[in-house]
Amino acid sequence: MLNLARPTDDGWFDRIRPHLDTILVDHCHLEKRAASNALNLIFRYTGRDGLARELSEVVKEEMDHFTLMLDILEARDIPFVRLSPSTYASRLSEAGTKQEPLAFLDKLLIAGLIEARSAERFKILSERLDEPELAEFYASLFATEARHHTLYTTLARRFFDHEKVRLRLLELAELESEALGAATDAPRLHSF
Amino acid sequence: MLNLARPTDDGWFDRIRPHLDTILVDHCHLEKRAASNALNLIFRYTGRDGLARELSEVVKEEMDHFTLMLDILEARDIPFVRLSPSTYASRLSEAGTKQEPLAFLDKLLIAGLIEARSAERFKILSERLDEPELAEFYASLFATEARHHTLYTTLARRFFDHEKVRLRLLELAELESEALGAATDAPRLHSF
Repeated sequence: MLNLARPTDDGWFDRIRPHLDTILVDHCHLEKRAASNALNLIFRYTGRDGLARELSEVVKEEMDHFTLMLDILEARDIPFVRLSPSTYASRLSEAGTKQEPLAFLDKLLIAGLIEARSAERFKILSERLDEPELAEFYASLFATEARHHTLYTTLARRFFDHEKVRLRLLELAELESEALGAATDAPRLHSF
Repeated sequence: MLNLARPTDDGWFDRIRPHLDTILVDHCHLEKRAASNALNLIFRYTGRDGLARELSEVVKEEMDHFTLMLDILEARDIPFVRLSPSTYASRLSEAGTKQEPLAFLDKLLIAGLIEARSAERFKILSERLDEPELAEFYASLFATEARHHTLYTTLARRFFDHEKVRLRLLELAELESEALGAATDAPRLHSF
């Protein structure tokens, strides 16, 4: 369902677990970036049928998650500070086609793949975290981010030939796994 | 309460009334830009006490208004197309201080003044439009945008000396009126 080429490496959870505070701060930034990315797509592709309305819901949901993450940080006395992002998302975006109209297709599919990877990792957190409240929170986020993945790929199929979308999604999913494998060592939601 | 140096010119409503469709499209873009501006402030000033939380509410409210405007356009069969923005907001932003920490103060106060001017014009629309439903809609938006104005100036007073804020607000309010007076001829929410 998530269209990922390869699952997260078995060791990821053990690598990041000692750095849970950092992961929570990184996750807070990630929600903000997801909102910003959806909003940028609304700016760039004004006038595409239904795009603005559907992505404005994504923006609002990501901002809701952002606020929830701020609550979680505050409850744990973790300051919301700047943090260098994983190289994952920028590397993946750079791999996208620059020339329209295919740039638009790639932006939708890449946004969808990032949501998919986030969803997959939220599921891992929900299954392996030893803190029931946080585990439950991640189980609920998994559902939303998986839905966002579906929304982005559905939008892609609205504007492009279905077979073209299917083939390009396979290619980009491969690039997504590579970008993850080559990502920064620092503990992040999107680190290797 | 809105801290504007001068009220909207008496003739504005009569100038824009024949172009109501364009005004509605411009307004839709304006809500999107207001959301984007608040989100950019969250990005730029990470770690300032309470800023992220309070501005994330602004982002969500502006996105709600954006969706409402899309509904209004759809109900009237007005396509949501690109539209050159009034020169007003960019001229005003350029007038802001570039050097921190005062750049931060100016960004807050300018965002607040733009909300104030929007609120003032929504009030005019609510009082003068001959379509009761739309007039009522603008009356409700007036309240929210006026509250956003207050939020931005309150944030400024949280981070800066109150007297400095008061004096700078007077200066920027003067620049705001000048930017409006020099704004594009084309009918816009922020046209002369």
